[in-house]
Amino acid sequence: MNIQIINGPNLNLLGKREPGIYGSEGFDTYFSNLKAKYPEINLHYFQSNVEGELINKIHEVGFDFDGIILNAGAYTHTSIAIADAIAAVKVPVIEVHISNVHARESFRHHSMIARNCKGVIAGFGLKSYELALNALSEK
Amino acid sequence: MNIQIINGPNLNLLGKREPGIYGSEGFDTYFSNLKAKYPEINLHYFQSNVEGELINKIHEVGFDFDGIILNAGAYTHTSIAIADAIAAVKVPVIEVHISNVHARESFRHHSMIARNCKGVIAGFGLKSYELALNALSEK
Amino acid sequence: MNIQIINGPNLNLLGKREPGIYGSEGFDTYFSNLKAKYPEINLHYFQSNVEGELINKIHEVGFDFDGIILNAGAYTHTSIAIADAIAAVKVPVIEVHISNVHARESFRHHSMIARNCKGVIAGFGLKSYELALNALSEK
Amino acid sequence: MNIQIINGPNLNLLGKREPGIYGSEGFDTYFSNLKAKYPEINLHYFQSNVEGELINKIHEVGFDFDGIILNAGAYTHTSIAIADAIAAVKVPVIEVHISNVHARESFRHHSMIARNCKGVIAGFGLKSYELALNALSEK
Amino acid sequence: MNIQIINGPNLNLLGKREPGIYGSEGFDTYFSNLKAKYPEINLHYFQSNVEGELINKIHEVGFDFDGIILNAGAYTHTSIAIADAIAAVKVPVIEVHISNVHARESFRHHSMIARNCKGVIAGFGLKSYELALNALSEK
Amino acid sequence: MNIQIINGPNLNLLGKREPGIYGSEGFDTYFSNLKAKYPEINLHYFQSNVEGELINKIHEVGFDFDGIILNAGAYTHTSIAIADAIAAVKVPVIEVHISNVHARESFRHHSMIARNCKGVIAGFGLKSYELALNALSEK
Amino acid sequence: MNIQIINGPNLNLLGKREPGIYGSEGFDTYFSNLKAKYPEINLHYFQSNVEGELINKIHEVGFDFDGIILNAGAYTHTSIAIADAIAAVKVPVIEVHISNVHARESFRHHSMIARNCKGVIAGFGLKSYELALNALSEK
Amino acid sequence: MNIQIINGPNLNLLGKREPGIYGSEGFDTYFSNLKAKYPEINLHYFQSNVEGELINKIHEVGFDFDGIILNAGAYTHTSIAIADAIAAVKVPVIEVHISNVHARESFRHHSMIARNCKGVIAGFGLKSYELALNALSEK
Amino acid sequence: MNIQIINGPNLNLLGKREPGIYGSEGFDTYFSNLKAKYPEINLHYFQSNVEGELINKIHEVGFDFDGIILNAGAYTHTSIAIADAIAAVKVPVIEVHISNVHARESFRHHSMIARNCKGVIAGFGLKSYELALNALSEK
Amino acid sequence: MNIQIINGPNLNLLGKREPGIYGSEGFDTYFSNLKAKYPEINLHYFQSNVEGELINKIHEVGFDFDGIILNAGAYTHTSIAIADAIAAVKVPVIEVHISNVHARESFRHHSMIARNCKGVIAGFGLKSYELALNALSEK
Amino acid sequence: MNIQIINGPNLNLLGKREPGIYGSEGFDTYFSNLKAKYPEINLHYFQSNVEGELINKIHEVGFDFDGIILNAGAYTHTSIAIADAIAAVKVPVIEVHISNVHARESFRHHSMIARNCKGVIAGFGLKSYELALNALSEK
Amino acid sequence: MNIQIINGPNLNLLGKREPGIYGSEGFDTYFSNLKAKYPEINLHYFQSNVEGELINKIHEVGFDFDGIILNAGAYTHTSIAIADAIAAVKVPVIEVHISNVHARESFRHHSMIARNCKGVIAGFGLKSYELALNALSEK
Repeated sequence: MNIQIINGPNLNLLGKREPGIYGSEGFDTYFSNLKAKYPEINLHYFQSNVEGELINKIHEVGFDFDGIILNAGAYTHTSIAIADAIAAVKVPVIEVHISNVHARESFRHHSMIARNCKGVIAGFGLKSYELALNALSEK
Repeated sequence: MNIQIINGPNLNLLGKREPGIYGSEGFDTYFSNLKAKYPEINLHYFQSNVEGELINKIHEVGFDFDGIILNAGAYTHTSIAIADAIAAVKVPVIEVHISNVHARESFRHHSMIARNCKGVIAGFGLKSYELALNALSEK
Repeated sequence: MNIQIINGPNLNLLGKREPGIYGSEGFDTYFSNLKAKYPEINLHYFQSNVEGELINKIHEVGFDFDGIILNAGAYTHTSIAIADAIAAVKVPVIEVHISNVHARESFRHHSMIARNCKGVIAGFGLKSYELALNALSEK
Repeated sequence: MNIQIINGPNLNLLGKREPGIYGSEGFDTYFSNLKAKYPEINLHYFQSNVEGELINKIHEVGFDFDGIILNAGAYTHTSIAIADAIAAVKVPVIEVHISNVHARESFRHHSMIARNCKGVIAGFGLKSYELALNALSEK
Repeated sequence: MNIQIINGPNLNLLGKREPGIYGSEGFDTYFSNLKAKYPEINLHYFQSNVEGELINKIHEVGFDFDGIILNAGAYTHTSIAIADAIAAVKVPVIEVHISNVHARESFRHHSMIARNCKGVIAGFGLKSYELALNALSEK
Repeated sequence: MNIQIINGPNLNLLGKREPGIYGSEGFDTYFSNLKAKYPEINLHYFQSNVEGELINKIHEVGFDFDGIILNAGAYTHTSIAIADAIAAVKVPVIEVHISNVHARESFRHHSMIARNCKGVIAGFGLKSYELALNALSEK
Repeated sequence: MNIQIINGPNLNLLGKREPGIYGSEGFDTYFSNLKAKYPEINLHYFQSNVEGELINKIHEVGFDFDGIILNAGAYTHTSIAIADAIAAVKVPVIEVHISNVHARESFRHHSMIARNCKGVIAGFGLKSYELALNALSEK
Repeated sequence: MNIQIINGPNLNLLGKREPGIYGSEGFDTYFSNLKAKYPEINLHYFQSNVEGELINKIHEVGFDFDGIILNAGAYTHTSIAIADAIAAVKVPVIEVHISNVHARESFRHHSMIARNCKGVIAGFGLKSYELALNALSEK
Repeated sequence: MNIQIINGPNLNLLGKREPGIYGSEGFDTYFSNLKAKYPEINLHYFQSNVEGELINKIHEVGFDFDGIILNAGAYTHTSIAIADAIAAVKVPVIEVHISNVHARESFRHHSMIARNCKGVIAGFGLKSYELALNALSEK
Repeated sequence: MNIQIINGPNLNLLGKREPGIYGSEGFDTYFSNLKAKYPEINLHYFQSNVEGELINKIHEVGFDFDGIILNAGAYTHTSIAIADAIAAVKVPVIEVHISNVHARESFRHHSMIARNCKGVIAGFGLKSYELALNALSEK
Repeated sequence: MNIQIINGPNLNLLGKREPGIYGSEGFDTYFSNLKAKYPEINLHYFQSNVEGELINKIHEVGFDFDGIILNAGAYTHTSIAIADAIAAVKVPVIEVHISNVHARESFRHHSMIARNCKGVIAGFGLKSYELALNALSEK
Repeated sequence: MNIQIINGPNLNLLGKREPGIYGSEGFDTYFSNLKAKYPEINLHYFQSNVEGELINKIHEVGFDFDGIILNAGAYTHTSIAIADAIAAVKVPVIEVHISNVHARESFRHHSMIARNCKGVIAGFGLKSYELALNALSEK
């Protein structure tokens, strides 16, 4: 089973950036722990701040993998192009957010990509990724 | 550990209503299975079509329980009163939806209550409730 | 043939309330006359000011009756939950209004529930109900 | 008793046009049947695709006839001029629609002319005209 | 000097229609008096309820006459086509209204055609036409 | 003199709920003090979280009492049905709020019901009720 | 007969300011000529850049004069206070503009004050004032 | 105890202006009576039609007095500058209105200044001022 | 092969009207050249300023011809009735514009009819018609 | 003659992605055929999912080539940066779309870039590119 | 070289008002220091809370001075009249703000006057004025 | 002292692109002159048309440098991702624009990133960068 985690803009700063909102754990540590806890799953990780590179990665794994866990960061709210990429591929995509985007600025309340995703999980800190993994792996 | 599941309007028809969107399993069967799978948790269930009775239930369990899993149905999109009730109580509330509300009519894209909840899980069928339970129970 | 008439909020005051808009005939008198005029139809009547009780009644009769004539009053313009209830049941529902809602305040021009109804009849005083009955009974 | 039925743009194609929405019966057949069923009423019929000709007809019969049944088609949603014509004449006008306009595109949800009409009947197929006739003739 | 007065939809009913708003004088009487008062001007009059015929008339006189006094009635608020016709011709066009459109329904507050006219005169009853004539003739 | 105080959703939690906004005094204590201070007035108190029950109470006392002091809580901003109930009854209704709703979230700035009330008093803590009582009793 | 002309902000710069839009004639010269042409009318002139002083002047002459010709300049589009002043006084007020405001920026298309005026005259250069004078003096 | 009453534009016409809305009592009489009824309070009165003079007065008394009762008239709905002045001073300000602004035109439903005031009292005629005085004096 | 070109309002003025936008070639010359260049196609031409006559023509050729090239002029942006006519007929319709409507006023950016057309070609001067012909003829 | 075709996000998936909307032909095959059909034109092809790389390519060829045929995909609707790039270069740019964007979701109805292009061709499948080529090459 | 600094409403309270936003330095001290630092420039200072007096000052110096540094305070966001004054005069005007208005309430994000100014400098505390001076003096 | 200048999309064309708006000086020349004028500051320069690369650069220098001068070009108006990057780093960022964006198209009036910047400087040509440098270096 191959699952791809894709993180969008500014998520490379996790642990350094606004710890009050995003927590102080870096994503690398979290990802190692997650792989250790789910050894039966081939977990892959990719991060980019470039919208088009996120699309490239979705295209690359979107026909053969078993699922994509996508935190598109700020592009969640503006990118029709990523939404189109999700619609164009075959694997189920789950939109995740670390923070509860609905409790933040109003421009974060609307997702351009959610309509093309299987589901949305938001607000549980880094555990949001694991819940998404559970949702995909038991399916 | 006491967890309250609260279902809002029309969710009593689950299994009878629009099976293409909501599936054909009734909630009672699902709830029994969930209790059996998590025997260490005191799971409680309440459903009402009356907005004010949902508020009453949130008040009743909202100071002593360990979590509320709330599918407010159509009131999700209109009820400031339920949002106020969530803000008024102490226990964490998780907003769940069976269907991916973002892939449906535009008036279902906005949640009045999400800003006061801990997080949101939507689109995984009845499994959305179990994911919410995982999120609450491991905390 | 079973037809359910459902009246929503404030329609219990008919005859007492703003007679310039709603006329001075109470609904009970009208309903008796209607039953007498159409003895071949089992006509049922229910009124409530509580949104959720209207939903309960739609659920109760919505799978076995032959039609619902619904004047949802002010909830017409705000209730996604009643709209969902209509979509969830099997019997045809006709939206009726005593006054011409389009000639009143602009917030009365939009119906949340009409899209899920078979049709709409508005502006003919209490006769709107009888026209709806004709529409249902000849079908 | 003189009643004028006025059909607006594209309704001359009834029976040929999108039968899934409008049915496959042409209006001429329906009109003949209606006249036969209500021999005591002088029923008149007029159709035009030209907004101004609809206004001319409303002016022509609007001071002497006993009622107008108006399906203004697409002009329903855009024509202040037809609305003004209705306000300018003396006879009651009933707005009818074959389909349930509220279940179609959002630009069909708003009527510019309804505020000046006596009432609205929509969604009952060609029977909408007969219901309007009942509403006018018993008055 | 040739001046064309053009009246749009429903203005043929002047004197018969809503006298509280439009007064009880018919336009024919007014026009005769106006011609008598300004014998040195060739005054022409045209009325139509058909948008396209108003455009035709604007085209017809719009290159040779000395001015057009246009009361486009309800088309004032919706017709880009009349606005385009005014822009396409050479003679100055003055928009007039009998009533003060700004004191009426909000959909009468915006003019689609005013931006292409020389000026606007509204609210002076039938005298609005004479004021427009003064504006044109002294130029 | 009979005055009815009606409190809407979540106001039963007064003293427990967000004391920074609503203060720490429960409404029962306040109501007892108020009755003691104004012994010449028959003061009645009702609270419900159910929109329809608030309407029922307005109907019940709305034709015979001398005034209603209504804090409709979150329903203030959404309920056309309560607004209709106020319009339907005879006694003057005063809208009160404990907090200054205009200094809070923007969805609390608009009242659906104020247009049908005699007046509005907001922002004076529990004293808002007493000021409303003064306004009613001296009338 | 006493007629007051009131000019609002920046109109003191007439002749100096954007001659392409407003022409190169100063208002003083124009006013002298106007007085000379209409010796039978007591013409008064007032200009201020201060919104409140315009209101003061409207109050001062608004109960005894025979008419006000008001070019409120930019306040036309924003001042509810001037609109209230016009509604509060007894004399008819005519809104005038030198340029055709509808052919300029969109924020100049809406007038806050027109609904309370007798009529509007716009786009005829300084002649707009004389047309307003004609409208008032023949009344 | 020093309390300043500040009245904004057009309120100098009270008693003369639209008595159907504002009553026929002039403010001077009312103010004399109010001073007589509350001899223990130093009541001060100021009125201006000039927005900036209202700001000047708020600055002047806003650091030393015990309260300001402000009826900003039409500036209530448009003036960020007055709102900023209220935020800049130390004394509590109460927004009052004679009429129920929510029952009038929609542009009177929103207050720019209320968010910076302690509270709002509207709709009780001139008694609104006395209620505000009660709210301030007992604090 | 029968192809109908239909031109809407003001396009009869081509060559005379605003040559900076529309060019100085009249449509008749262009149409003759086009017929000469494509002798194998039966090219038909119709122009009207009347919305309803455009609908009539669409009905007339819309079931038997091989294609319609429609420049609806200003009606492009307002006419639901023409959009309905296109949906009602069987032949493919191509929307063309001489100028690039997206580079002009914002009310020209939205097309009411494009959703029912096969495609849109805009901005290539009169050559837009030939490109549409190519698109239809090779199909 | 050098013509550059530029394809934006997700168009690399052509033939694989949603064949119901975009057809099953890959762009490479189509491009080879197009080059073979127009041997006299130097046709160049570039595709990228990265907005900035599309801008780079527009800069690179935008001063020396004879035309750009641009299908900006989803960036059509959001990218001011691409629109600025088109405005900054010298060669004419034609916006093309494979599908009729006006018949799809409403967020695809508006183009940010069309105002800076020479023209728009949409809805003719891959043939849209050839029509654009015709438009450019004959110029 | 003559440079006029103009401060709008509430800026006379600088140092006293909300020091968290505006700092604790009064403008007089700052202005003295600024004059001392730039002895070669004739610096003038004017402050008023009255919109019309700001316009008067702009008129007064706007044809002869070398620049205006304008902090219009709250009028920045509402005053078309000040914007018109800036457009009417000849000298360049620079809009300055002490705080970063874009980081405050959304009604402070839009400037009515910026389009007529040479440029905007905001967010640098009182240093914003000096930066504006640099921009003007080196020109 | 290390200061990073970052230029966004299309600014590499400076001097070549729309000289009427942006001037004819290339940025390289300007940057050399700026370095020569401020030898005590380590000035760094970076330009990219790729949104994500701008984010990467902000991350790279955002924790150690002393300031960033950012002209995000068209991304200013759309990029939440760049705004998030600015919020995530520690150094102060100043938003600059060469032209006065408020005097251009309305979609350039709103900045998504300004709220996270220290301040904004716009409209002074290339001198905007030097003013920003002054603002940073004296801090």
